[in-house]
Amino acid sequence: MTTEDHPASPCNGGGCGKGATSGTSKHKDENILQSLSKIRHKLLVMSGKGGVGKSSVSAGLAVQLAQMGHQVGLLDVDIHGPSLAGIMGVKGLLDITEDKKVLAKQVHERLKVVSMQSLMQDSDQAVIWRGPAKSGVIRQFVGDVLWGDLDFLIIDAPPGTGDEPLSVAQTIPDANAVIVTTPQDVALSDVRKSINFCHTINMKIVGLVENMGPFDCPCCGKPLALFKSGGGEATSTRMKISFLGTLPFDPKVVKACDNGDAVDLAAAAPSFMAAVGSVAGKVIEFVDS
Amino acid sequence: MTTEDHPASPCNGGGCGKGATSGTSKHKDENILQSLSKIRHKLLVMSGKGGVGKSSVSAGLAVQLAQMGHQVGLLDVDIHGPSLAGIMGVKGLLDITEDKKVLAKQVHERLKVVSMQSLMQDSDQAVIWRGPAKSGVIRQFVGDVLWGDLDFLIIDAPPGTGDEPLSVAQTIPDANAVIVTTPQDVALSDVRKSINFCHTINMKIVGLVENMGPFDCPCCGKPLALFKSGGGEATSTRMKISFLGTLPFDPKVVKACDNGDAVDLAAAAPSFMAAVGSVAGKVIEFVDS
Repeated sequence: MTTEDHPASPCNGGGCGKGATSGTSKHKDENILQSLSKIRHKLLVMSGKGGVGKSSVSAGLAVQLAQMGHQVGLLDVDIHGPSLAGIMGVKGLLDITEDKKVLAKQVHERLKVVSMQSLMQDSDQAVIWRGPAKSGVIRQFVGDVLWGDLDFLIIDAPPGTGDEPLSVAQTIPDANAVIVTTPQDVALSDVRKSINFCHTINMKIVGLVENMGPFDCPCCGKPLALFKSGGGEATSTRMKISFLGTLPFDPKVVKACDNGDAVDLAAAAPSFMAAVGSVAGKVIEFVDS
Repeated sequence: MTTEDHPASPCNGGGCGKGATSGTSKHKDENILQSLSKIRHKLLVMSGKGGVGKSSVSAGLAVQLAQMGHQVGLLDVDIHGPSLAGIMGVKGLLDITEDKKVLAKQVHERLKVVSMQSLMQDSDQAVIWRGPAKSGVIRQFVGDVLWGDLDFLIIDAPPGTGDEPLSVAQTIPDANAVIVTTPQDVALSDVRKSINFCHTINMKIVGLVENMGPFDCPCCGKPLALFKSGGGEATSTRMKISFLGTLPFDPKVVKACDNGDAVDLAAAAPSFMAAVGSVAGKVIEFVDS
């Protein structure tokens, strides 16, 4: 398979206008509507800044919901730093159907994954695109995936409040946001920007997840606050959004994600996944209400 | 002072074209050349992803170089998550001269700071701009600061390889890159993108700094690898760039930066600053060679 078979690659995506799958933006919009119509709930996992573990939280939430019996899709739309393929152990390029649709990769009985990384041949290559080109690629990418029937689509959004999360939000207007942060003030000031971003574009917010919480000292078991503590709940209260819970810091999560074993997180990092389970419960309560 | 006095604010910056300081892009280019002509060395501190502690490393490096006797400027150009003002304890808006130049804030005998945050009235407000508008703001912002004579200008670049680092790199073409990463594989795959980004735009790379290295267990003093270890040096070797050193993980750095006390990092987190000192030595070696 060559890059030319890939609908979202720079040279036949929105970047240079030579669309292989669809000539007009009307076709693209129809593709997107069709692709999203069979998905009951879309969750956009966002963060004001990178490095807060947004991809690990997205992966954990997707695995947890699948284990609870839901049909789940997991998608990353980060052109500059796509990492879900690595975290979920999806290697190589994705399969493409005859009519140029991307087939999501099945990693668990009820969990499928699509990462932008799987559409790039050299994963070390920097992608240097200006805003409008990226927006076209994101729209085409979302529209070209064949998901089938899903209960949940978890979308790992690019960090920040720039072009990329804006394009994702505009492409999937009925998505609800789950915002991830770490406990310290610098990250929380960024999260307040994310909340205001959602308000500005009229996206509903499920709530805030505080990641990288207490780390249990390997000597005495006492929880250590590596990145301070309590900031997530305080910000949720101040900004009047739901607090979904604190996830502990666990080097075993870092290791499992690095090794591409996130699908087995329940075995590798049980206390982390127990906390994710509680977050998943609150997410289900929100979408069912 | 009102927002209207601020050259880089959304409504009189490059965003909507109503430039208060300069009507033409030729004027802007002259401003930039003049502003940068008195600065001997420009260092662009980059990272492939956010959350690797790039701002703490930028702050630490600037404080260290100032303590070593150099005249230093510290600038952040992150429209979506500017954090240097908070880290350096710079409060309120910056002063503007009669001819609409931004005055850098003196935080130490030999250290001045300018952060985009100081030009935004409500620091919680999300900035939602498309690429080209941001590029104009960044160029104007860099050109409108009065630095005076400096030995080093440390520029805390926006994370990733998108519009913003590209605009900064194009605005300051003689800058050299210092790339920051954490030790684990996911971050390192992003850093390889940063290195390729520098190669693509012909920017010289001083080397790679590995942040969030070993954390000394508070019970037994044994170093714990929270984010794995050794990845930075391995990537430097593989990508044929210099390895500038590993900085330890220290919750006291998180706390000092959150409290706006980064200028006193040497007292708050001596082992972190000792490691930064070794990095600073290698930077000086590079620029003097």
